[in-house]
Amino acid sequence: MITTKSYAAQDNQSPLAPWTFERREVGPHDVQFDIQYCGVCHSDLHQIKDDWFPGIFPMVPGHEIIGRVVKVGEHVKKFKVGDIAGTGCMVDSCRECENCQKDLEQYCLKGNSQTYNGLEQDGKTPTYGGYSNTIVVNEDFVLHVSDKLNLAAVAPLLCAGITTYSPLRHWNVGKGHKLAVLGLGGLGHMAVKFGVSFGAEVTVLSTSPNKEQDARKLGAHNFVVTTDEAQLAAARNSFDFILDTVSAEHDLNLYLSLLKTDGTHICVGVPSKPSPVAAFSLLGGRKSLAGSGIGGIAETQEMLDYCAEHGIVSEIEMIDIKDIQNAYDRMLKGDVRYRFVIDMATL
Amino acid sequence: MITTKSYAAQDNQSPLAPWTFERREVGPHDVQFDIQYCGVCHSDLHQIKDDWFPGIFPMVPGHEIIGRVVKVGEHVKKFKVGDIAGTGCMVDSCRECENCQKDLEQYCLKGNSQTYNGLEQDGKTPTYGGYSNTIVVNEDFVLHVSDKLNLAAVAPLLCAGITTYSPLRHWNVGKGHKLAVLGLGGLGHMAVKFGVSFGAEVTVLSTSPNKEQDARKLGAHNFVVTTDEAQLAAARNSFDFILDTVSAEHDLNLYLSLLKTDGTHICVGVPSKPSPVAAFSLLGGRKSLAGSGIGGIAETQEMLDYCAEHGIVSEIEMIDIKDIQNAYDRMLKGDVRYRFVIDMATL
Repeated sequence: MITTKSYAAQDNQSPLAPWTFERREVGPHDVQFDIQYCGVCHSDLHQIKDDWFPGIFPMVPGHEIIGRVVKVGEHVKKFKVGDIAGTGCMVDSCRECENCQKDLEQYCLKGNSQTYNGLEQDGKTPTYGGYSNTIVVNEDFVLHVSDKLNLAAVAPLLCAGITTYSPLRHWNVGKGHKLAVLGLGGLGHMAVKFGVSFGAEVTVLSTSPNKEQDARKLGAHNFVVTTDEAQLAAARNSFDFILDTVSAEHDLNLYLSLLKTDGTHICVGVPSKPSPVAAFSLLGGRKSLAGSGIGGIAETQEMLDYCAEHGIVSEIEMIDIKDIQNAYDRMLKGDVRYRFVIDMATL
Repeated sequence: MITTKSYAAQDNQSPLAPWTFERREVGPHDVQFDIQYCGVCHSDLHQIKDDWFPGIFPMVPGHEIIGRVVKVGEHVKKFKVGDIAGTGCMVDSCRECENCQKDLEQYCLKGNSQTYNGLEQDGKTPTYGGYSNTIVVNEDFVLHVSDKLNLAAVAPLLCAGITTYSPLRHWNVGKGHKLAVLGLGGLGHMAVKFGVSFGAEVTVLSTSPNKEQDARKLGAHNFVVTTDEAQLAAARNSFDFILDTVSAEHDLNLYLSLLKTDGTHICVGVPSKPSPVAAFSLLGGRKSLAGSGIGGIAETQEMLDYCAEHGIVSEIEMIDIKDIQNAYDRMLKGDVRYRFVIDMATL
């Protein structure tokens, strides 16, 4: 077994604190990589607080993981020692169901293995995430990462990146489309970068007027302050797509009214409670409210390659792991531009 | 002016009762037809009760209207005296907006003129519906009706028919698709007929086990009692589309769980209150919750022609207009197979 240092929550009330646990030995199809950087996702906080469902404790969060391969199993073909490797939100899936066969492991019908707060495919071994010094993952769930980019800023691509890239690709968002990005946080700022890169006219919808300058710097063409009635009125019936990255509660009917006829509002954030949707909000223009969860492994690799080719990374603020609680507090207030990344050397 | 007999609600508390009012003279582009049959739609009841929004009273409901042309304006080209004519949920629209230009008058951006409980395009003249002996409508909003079919049974096609036909066509539902129809009422039974006719494998989802026989008689291939946990569990992740015709409150998350990955739940009924939707219900399989409202005029004509060609009509129970309140009471209990149609000769 591999003794692993980490930061963990012992239960849904406790702050994260140092914890040592054992990872499995490197199996024939496994890659072990030492973690250099791990992004801090809003879902880390949701999960250690049991906001969504009862969690598996102790919990080691972190699913935006970048590091360098230190060991590979005897049958591993895709990686060698010294490679830069990444792992996102999943470490395994059934590989047999209709969805896994279509490279949609994120929708594995038998349930994939989440990188943390989940179980391996044996249905009993808990998974532990990237707030740790090393990780062992089946090679099929390890991504290749180009060393052309700032690796710390690549880490968030493994969740915030793919979560926004995938729906924009699935719905073919691009030239000729008006795309609104709701919320300018970790996911939202990536949605802006991808939307602009794909050729859409991008508008940021935000409650914070002071984010306009940043939005434009990220490439957004327009900015709408959603607490300003006049700006909202002018935006009615105007968007082909809204990519909704907000995981706090918000009124979906308001945003549906900003869609054109046949427009689609795509949720990628997960608020703690269900949101009331009025039938007229949808019927009144044949609108759709859709959801999208991360992306499959092949598409995640495609996204990372696209980012390397187009020089796209996340805007980050690097922190020491001892400051994680402060980072969570600031994230809750929206005070992060735009993703905290933990320098795992500080563990 | 044309003195018109009707049944009207004087306010949102009163039962329907005889009322006489004046319709406009037949203008150069108008068609006047004497009403033979008018279908009874659940939305008639919603509107006289102000369930959705404050109504315009006195209110003459009815938007599934069939009759025979008695007069045409001097510029009318599409109709002549003696033709069978129909009018559905709209009697006019702006004709200029992006949606009207695309034959989507139902989504007119300036607001179309609803057949009743609405205003003409002058923004001030109230519209009165089909629970009346005659109606005057601009020819562009009058439909041709084949005399091959039972005219009383054609009336409901003008709302229940087009409301289900249009989304099935828009989403290209047909061969190779598993379609669930939620609710076997006026809309639902038409959705079954169209779904079967378009080649889909059709399942009726209903709380009433005693509707199974009817469902199968209408052509449905399967029937799921939604209060039976075992039947529900077996139906999870199985449908490409759900056409949701229910206008009572119901749990959308339950039905979203029955969709396959990338499945679409299409709402055509309008419950009085917004329904809570959990983000995970959508994200957990890239699902969509969509809405669709009736259909454009060209598509309504296409639907009527399709029905004439394929011998499709509504299953109806004919009533005298004096029994309308009893019909509403029975409709509320789901005790109608499957659409009440008023014989307007009884007015």
